[in-house]
Amino acid sequence: MTFLYKADPARGAKWAARFAQLAPELPFRVWPDIGDPAEIRYLAAWTPDDLAETLPNLEVIFSVGAGVDQFDLTRVPPHLPVVRMIEPGIVEGMVEYVTEAVLAVHRDLFDYALQQQAQVWKALPVRAASGRRIGVLGLGMLGTAVLERLRLFSFACAGWSRSARQIEGVECYAGEASLDTFLARTDILVCLLPLTDATRGLLGRRVYAALPDGASLVHVGRGPQLNTSDLLDALTSGRLRNAVLDVTDPEPLPAGHPLWTQPRVRITPHIASATRPDGAVDAVLANLRRHRAGQPMHGQIDRTRGY
Amino acid sequence: MTFLYKADPARGAKWAARFAQLAPELPFRVWPDIGDPAEIRYLAAWTPDDLAETLPNLEVIFSVGAGVDQFDLTRVPPHLPVVRMIEPGIVEGMVEYVTEAVLAVHRDLFDYALQQQAQVWKALPVRAASGRRIGVLGLGMLGTAVLERLRLFSFACAGWSRSARQIEGVECYAGEASLDTFLARTDILVCLLPLTDATRGLLGRRVYAALPDGASLVHVGRGPQLNTSDLLDALTSGRLRNAVLDVTDPEPLPAGHPLWTQPRVRITPHIASATRPDGAVDAVLANLRRHRAGQPMHGQIDRTRGY
Repeated sequence: MTFLYKADPARGAKWAARFAQLAPELPFRVWPDIGDPAEIRYLAAWTPDDLAETLPNLEVIFSVGAGVDQFDLTRVPPHLPVVRMIEPGIVEGMVEYVTEAVLAVHRDLFDYALQQQAQVWKALPVRAASGRRIGVLGLGMLGTAVLERLRLFSFACAGWSRSARQIEGVECYAGEASLDTFLARTDILVCLLPLTDATRGLLGRRVYAALPDGASLVHVGRGPQLNTSDLLDALTSGRLRNAVLDVTDPEPLPAGHPLWTQPRVRITPHIASATRPDGAVDAVLANLRRHRAGQPMHGQIDRTRGY
Repeated sequence: MTFLYKADPARGAKWAARFAQLAPELPFRVWPDIGDPAEIRYLAAWTPDDLAETLPNLEVIFSVGAGVDQFDLTRVPPHLPVVRMIEPGIVEGMVEYVTEAVLAVHRDLFDYALQQQAQVWKALPVRAASGRRIGVLGLGMLGTAVLERLRLFSFACAGWSRSARQIEGVECYAGEASLDTFLARTDILVCLLPLTDATRGLLGRRVYAALPDGASLVHVGRGPQLNTSDLLDALTSGRLRNAVLDVTDPEPLPAGHPLWTQPRVRITPHIASATRPDGAVDAVLANLRRHRAGQPMHGQIDRTRGY
């Protein structure tokens, strides 16, 4: 009975150390040093590639990321549970990143940066947070945590999700039919949706047209949800005022791409939130205990929805 | 019995409207249209200039700002109470600004901005908030509110003040003798001190030398607390890694000043926090009720300390 890790090797060394400390009875291997394939019961991977098909006794696949959209699920046998990563570091990082981005937009820091370049000292009109409407697309663990933190600043908070949700102090919208209403009341749109066929390319002309004039986008979902050329059009026309992008399409963004030099676009290289090795191992071990006890694992995905 | 306002006239119009609504019995005038000087009992001003000496029946002077350092207190007769502005808008704005600045430094956004300029997509190592040591100089209403918000992000929070204070979850240091110990454990230093003879020029060589190598400064106190030439030296040598400056010396910062073009300095034009007219009038009227009832007013300064 062996645990196999297939992702960033530097993080793998940290996983190995924590497994040795907390689960010394469970042999731990880092790909490609897999030993006897028949021994491997558990796999943690960024992309399993052919492993899900070729390891005969595999029982569970853990994603090392918050999502599983990087998996080719057609190559994962249907009986195998696939579990995404739920650990406190992912939530903490995302709450930090989105809070900063929303406050930066709210307090006109893009405009002040341009004024600094021009060496101009001039105060701009202030809007109270209660008059600034934040809208979060996606009300899973991350979207909910982000809204709960933003509420403390007295922003007018709303969220949208496919199926109905309730979050205290947050106006919740659900389903396709309510999307335009949600967008029309949103000054700063935060995307935290999972990547699925329904969300691919969603951040395009139709969404930008439904937002109020001069709205801003904070995109911390997945790159392929972004229609980059529609975004550039929306920024050029002034439809959108700013964009904070932690994910892009293509990703990584190549040198020379026009997004890099847009004056009201801030780009970070997909760093909003990352799994911390210690928290990740703790989450995986807790799920292994649940799995052995026949209980449902936290973060097990619904193969029909893809998240 | 008349209330006289002497500050920004656009805000004065908003004060007048709210006085008319909430205290119609109290005549309200905007300087220089003062009418009969003997009628004026109350003055709200940014700088009273000679008014405190020349209005014979003045009973209270209200500052329209959070501090009174812009007053020449030697020109205010000693019997006259001087009250600084305590209203929710000032606190909310400061909490927003400092939270954003601390998160921006914490999440390496200065470095990512330089990478964006160079069109480089590269993730930098992440530090958990619990390992990032925030230190706030000044534990009045603003410093306390800022620390209470930053604690929610799990930062390691400390504060320093002249006299001893206690804030839950915050390591509190007090007095001159503990300043170096406080600075030595501080990665991100936030200055929210009042301007007094003791704090003028405080943010200079001695403070920068006591901070850990590569620390950052968020300055939201008053411009003259900053020794600009020492700051430029500390940034050039790498002693300090970043500075977020909402106040500067000189202020306004003139075009051509070397601070404008430092790559790791962000400058905003003294906008971190501003009194909102409605909240300010409410605070002033509540204090007038206390004054008439012979109760102490909120924010009345101690003339011997100057704050």
